[in-house]
Amino acid sequence: MTDTINSDLFKVVGHDALRKDGEGKLTGETRFAGDLVLPGMLHARLVTSRYAHARINSIDISEALKVPGVFKVIIAADLPIVQESSESRRRNPLAKDEVIFYGQPIAVVLGETEAAALDGVDQVFVDYDPLPVVSSMEEALKPNAMNVRSREAHGADADAQMHATVETKDQDVGFKLPHNVSNHIHFKRGDVESGFSEAAAIVENTYTVPMIHQSYIEPQSCLAEPTTGGGITLYTSTQAAFIARQEVAAALNMPLNKVKIVVTTIGGAFGGKFVLIEPFTAALAKVARRPVRLVFYRMEDLTAGNPSFNGKIELKIGARANGTLSALKAKVYFETGAYPGTALGIAGIVLAGYYRVDNFDIECFEVLTHKTGVGAYRAPGSPQTTFALESAIDALARAMNRDLLEFRLQNCIIEGDIMVNGKPMPRIGLKECMEQLSKHPLWLNRDKVAPGEGIGVAIGGWPGGLEPASSTCRLDHDGNITVTTGVADISGVTTSLGLIAAEVLGLQTEHVTVENVDTSSAPYAGASGGSKTLYTVGAAVLKAAQDAKEQILNIASSLLEANPQDLELQDGKVSVKGVTSKSVTLKEIAAKSMSFGGRFEPVFGRGNSAIVRNAPGFTAHLARVRVDSETGEVEVLDYVAVQDVGKAINPAEVHGQIHGGVTQGLGWALYEQMVYDEEGTLINGSLMDYALQSAPQVPNIEVQLIEIPSPDGPFGAKGVGEPPIVPGGATICNAIYAATGVRINEIPAVPERVRAAIISGAQDKITH
Amino acid sequence: MTDTINSDLFKVVGHDALRKDGEGKLTGETRFAGDLVLPGMLHARLVTSRYAHARINSIDISEALKVPGVFKVIIAADLPIVQESSESRRRNPLAKDEVIFYGQPIAVVLGETEAAALDGVDQVFVDYDPLPVVSSMEEALKPNAMNVRSREAHGADADAQMHATVETKDQDVGFKLPHNVSNHIHFKRGDVESGFSEAAAIVENTYTVPMIHQSYIEPQSCLAEPTTGGGITLYTSTQAAFIARQEVAAALNMPLNKVKIVVTTIGGAFGGKFVLIEPFTAALAKVARRPVRLVFYRMEDLTAGNPSFNGKIELKIGARANGTLSALKAKVYFETGAYPGTALGIAGIVLAGYYRVDNFDIECFEVLTHKTGVGAYRAPGSPQTTFALESAIDALARAMNRDLLEFRLQNCIIEGDIMVNGKPMPRIGLKECMEQLSKHPLWLNRDKVAPGEGIGVAIGGWPGGLEPASSTCRLDHDGNITVTTGVADISGVTTSLGLIAAEVLGLQTEHVTVENVDTSSAPYAGASGGSKTLYTVGAAVLKAAQDAKEQILNIASSLLEANPQDLELQDGKVSVKGVTSKSVTLKEIAAKSMSFGGRFEPVFGRGNSAIVRNAPGFTAHLARVRVDSETGEVEVLDYVAVQDVGKAINPAEVHGQIHGGVTQGLGWALYEQMVYDEEGTLINGSLMDYALQSAPQVPNIEVQLIEIPSPDGPFGAKGVGEPPIVPGGATICNAIYAATGVRINEIPAVPERVRAAIISGAQDKITH
Repeated sequence: MTDTINSDLFKVVGHDALRKDGEGKLTGETRFAGDLVLPGMLHARLVTSRYAHARINSIDISEALKVPGVFKVIIAADLPIVQESSESRRRNPLAKDEVIFYGQPIAVVLGETEAAALDGVDQVFVDYDPLPVVSSMEEALKPNAMNVRSREAHGADADAQMHATVETKDQDVGFKLPHNVSNHIHFKRGDVESGFSEAAAIVENTYTVPMIHQSYIEPQSCLAEPTTGGGITLYTSTQAAFIARQEVAAALNMPLNKVKIVVTTIGGAFGGKFVLIEPFTAALAKVARRPVRLVFYRMEDLTAGNPSFNGKIELKIGARANGTLSALKAKVYFETGAYPGTALGIAGIVLAGYYRVDNFDIECFEVLTHKTGVGAYRAPGSPQTTFALESAIDALARAMNRDLLEFRLQNCIIEGDIMVNGKPMPRIGLKECMEQLSKHPLWLNRDKVAPGEGIGVAIGGWPGGLEPASSTCRLDHDGNITVTTGVADISGVTTSLGLIAAEVLGLQTEHVTVENVDTSSAPYAGASGGSKTLYTVGAAVLKAAQDAKEQILNIASSLLEANPQDLELQDGKVSVKGVTSKSVTLKEIAAKSMSFGGRFEPVFGRGNSAIVRNAPGFTAHLARVRVDSETGEVEVLDYVAVQDVGKAINPAEVHGQIHGGVTQGLGWALYEQMVYDEEGTLINGSLMDYALQSAPQVPNIEVQLIEIPSPDGPFGAKGVGEPPIVPGGATICNAIYAATGVRINEIPAVPERVRAAIISGAQDKITH
Repeated sequence: MTDTINSDLFKVVGHDALRKDGEGKLTGETRFAGDLVLPGMLHARLVTSRYAHARINSIDISEALKVPGVFKVIIAADLPIVQESSESRRRNPLAKDEVIFYGQPIAVVLGETEAAALDGVDQVFVDYDPLPVVSSMEEALKPNAMNVRSREAHGADADAQMHATVETKDQDVGFKLPHNVSNHIHFKRGDVESGFSEAAAIVENTYTVPMIHQSYIEPQSCLAEPTTGGGITLYTSTQAAFIARQEVAAALNMPLNKVKIVVTTIGGAFGGKFVLIEPFTAALAKVARRPVRLVFYRMEDLTAGNPSFNGKIELKIGARANGTLSALKAKVYFETGAYPGTALGIAGIVLAGYYRVDNFDIECFEVLTHKTGVGAYRAPGSPQTTFALESAIDALARAMNRDLLEFRLQNCIIEGDIMVNGKPMPRIGLKECMEQLSKHPLWLNRDKVAPGEGIGVAIGGWPGGLEPASSTCRLDHDGNITVTTGVADISGVTTSLGLIAAEVLGLQTEHVTVENVDTSSAPYAGASGGSKTLYTVGAAVLKAAQDAKEQILNIASSLLEANPQDLELQDGKVSVKGVTSKSVTLKEIAAKSMSFGGRFEPVFGRGNSAIVRNAPGFTAHLARVRVDSETGEVEVLDYVAVQDVGKAINPAEVHGQIHGGVTQGLGWALYEQMVYDEEGTLINGSLMDYALQSAPQVPNIEVQLIEIPSPDGPFGAKGVGEPPIVPGGATICNAIYAATGVRINEIPAVPERVRAAIISGAQDKITH
């Protein structure tokens, strides 16, 4: 495998292609789950808790039932859901005797119309006894803190670790974990104390990152329809069709083959749609014996969705006089709300995974509080911990009087370095990204910025996920190709999968249709997420297309009386090399293989794939900012993202994904945060209050791609989705440091926080 | 390949299994196309012609448009259908300037409700000029007959020949064909005149068979829905999903990938649902830009469906003194109504295909008349011609003083005899069927019947169809199996396909689900019909299951550290042979191959199949009847059907299919006929008038299976569906002869016809 792939070799792959889902989205013709209507469909509206923690004495639904158009009012006891444990949020969609977060659903009104359901909601009366609220990790970790959950809640949800392949060791901590700690992981190598004793400089700091919301345009949406034979079909906006199928079947105690998941067009997900309301909606439909549609209002999605966890990272890192890192010690706290399930293991992968450090000791704690449960959000755990590491590295390089990129280049991991899971790092492009960034004019002229401006850099990465996948590739009667997968498209992957098949089969992309099929008949694909979608499903599509090509050549070989190896397939035609007159079209082959009395087997390729090597993706970002020292306002003037993508199958799409990721990273850095008061009430629970960027706030983003091909991904491709969101926080805060000389260790770097730091002259704690 | 298969070797195949579609049909839960409702759906109701032939001067829709709830009234000029030729019925669903059969649709009213549409139909006024009507073949073939179609209409519709693989030679007839003949085929071998000169006895007769209707319970039904991106989805009761897809795409000039055909549960088809109203309904939805449902009323289905053609066969057959057949000469006339397209080639396959005859000359004519176009009906062409042949053979054996079965056994074709297509006959079970029948107590005691009773026998056959097919076989998370195909289930084939996969994979049938997928993503399957469904699709399923099994054993081999050949798969578990403790379940294999980080490829088998050898199916029938010589009424007292099925995958289903086929054959023999008057008006256009049997009219039917395995069908299976309908007419009329000594040469043998024959003492024309 060479280090570069010559795009000239490809006719389709590597060339910009329009997204096939684009037109319907632009014209508004695309129908999302919330647009679907079925005959007899009921509208579900939620009665939610006004308290973060309270005992429910009674729920009076009698008045609600009198509202015209109200079909049923359902409380927890009515739901035919098999119980697992009270920690399973999917299995406990309605509070029973106790509410444990603000906005928690307590009852649901099913109405013939949405208006009727809403009128019904107003007539449901809940009698509460408010209880004390654990509203922060600080509160939760106090020795005398009350238990957030009545019984112990250890062990993460299975899907919490799904975004990356993590092997963790939970060693004996030698002390009793605080009772509100629901998960604990300890990563350790070497001897940190001896490491720190070798250090010429040590940086120590505590970094704080906020709880933020995925802020997909389309809220959580699901439509469940009971079907004949005791089945149920869900039309749902999910990244995880097969998981949804298993979860619904298990929750409703139904055979798997009675549950069909149809993934509707997804209006954004970013990790937040890994099965949340599907078992709930299915249960409602089962009770009602009619189709039920549940679409969260924006405020419900903010208060009762599954946003990203916030974190606090206490980090200490030291370097020897020769510039090598000698030790890293960290305590990481992720706030998981009222339900266990953060991507805790990622903390170790990031903190000990970007740079070679012989001695590390990283302890990670997941902490329960009275807030909504959390979920995945693009590279879950990585923006949090990368903010800490890359802020500290910046400070350490400065403390050592080293060039900020050279210092990173000296220490960054390369192929063969041992990862936290004990395995050697495969060939990655981290070094190349930084080298390319170091040649950028902005970096070369970093000392010539105007007063009040500064340039900062940071790196970020993502280990990449793995999951087996299958695909088929069918020749159609018109000579075109249909590829099937079971994938959910959250990133334009459908278009890219089509490019892969088109490239293999020598076709232009308009001749390939990719059908993402429902779970009843789809080739298996895992959930879309973790930057593994194209990497793994694309590999299956590649094999399916290659299989179809072989079948095509075999039929052509018989028809043209030539050896398959003497044939070439291009533009819908198989020709004998060098004998242009001897050819047969795909349409002719289709006619001979899919017709009455046909003597050839249909062309129907199949690809099964199980890649077992990760392809970690890395990126290096640069920002030029201007800081208004009077107001603390930060303006991003330039932003550069250099990312190793292995091979950009559809460069236009890869650029788009990186633009989106960078923008979300700037949200982490500068704007977004979910703010709860001491009562556990979300006080910015609407998009009027929650500071999601608008387009003018997004700077011009320059994207440069590095292509270090992965050995296993299709045409060398790697995952692209997660890395670009990762370095935003550190990049911006490092640029602020360059502009102002003060260290911001809590994001978002909102004006009042920046101004306060400038006034106090906030610095890193450095020991020499 | 041995001649028998020991069913004890099989755990699932060969054992009676309940039909998976049975419960929904029994409880009424199953939803047919006509039960489906979509939001915004319009109801289509037809304005039909009261004349069989007339000029349309004008259509006044103005009053209809005033009816509340009428959305649109559509006439031919409004339909966005690409024209081919006026002979294409699919492309001309509405009459333009001229109506050419009674009941022909002229306009369609789209209503918000069915009632509104019907009210609208009453307010559409058509101004006609009646024209002369060609109401029978006799009329059509008169030299001065008017042209049924304004321009010549030669060449059969492509699907007319789809029920069997026929290679025909249309030689120069040496004379100008009558202008209302739309197709002509000539089968010839040897010299018939010299053959007849060798004959010791010659039988000559003209046989007449009626036009009858398939009489499926569910009439023609289709629901078309415009979808986003300019697509269309059809929910339709069709045997031919992929043909429907091609036809709709071509008719509406749409790309193939924009047309999705979802086959709904089929309430009977029997050949009558090979794409009729699909392009029409799709065009209506395209004009309306809303979903449109068109469900024929029973009377519309009888007058404007595509029933079975009637026939007239002039047959002359001679045998030498040694009992061998010396010559056969025939003229066959099939009435095709106003649209070309009968299974004309089958006439030769039958007449020269049951018995060895060195010299034959068979001329077949397809004749146009002013009646509705015809379609396929279970073994199209075979019941008609078999009635002629098996009546004549009965007479010939009697003329030669030969035992009726011995004479047939002496002459019947066996493996290696040359078929009309010039190829040798494969191993068939015709002889075995007759040998088995000859041992039946009813036959052995045939001379001991009561006065007025008689026992008749006849044989029948079907060449069997061929078409390539694909299938997939997926392991699911619960350790169960999902098989996918693109097949339409008209015969319980879904259950049988599941048995095939279950057998291969060592599972009980409840662990296998068969999904028949829509055309957008299904593995290819041809139309269901021609007794080729299980034979060809089953072969693909078998291969897909074998492929999945191999994948399962490979994964188990790795997990159990054993060679695949040392493993056995049974009851959801792979074990090392002889080491019961070493095993892994399918569920465990699923967990390791379809999960985050899984290191095995998903188990996803694929089968592509293209069987190139037909497996003709034969049957021998016996009936004991009692004839009331006063009234001419015929009562069927006993009926025995012995059929070679190759291998009965699901014996219960095979018995059921034979019961159904025999019953329909008795309909041909005794009850059914579509009766038109001289004006071309169907005078028994309802099930009050059309004599479809009711259950008490069906005798007890004894079914005996012969299993001469086919080399290519799954587990040796052959097609089962067509043969049992074939011999009914001759079996009954031969029994009537045995009872009364008179020959009935026109079916149905209704009482007035039988009584007339008894009074006239009707005999065969025999020359010695």
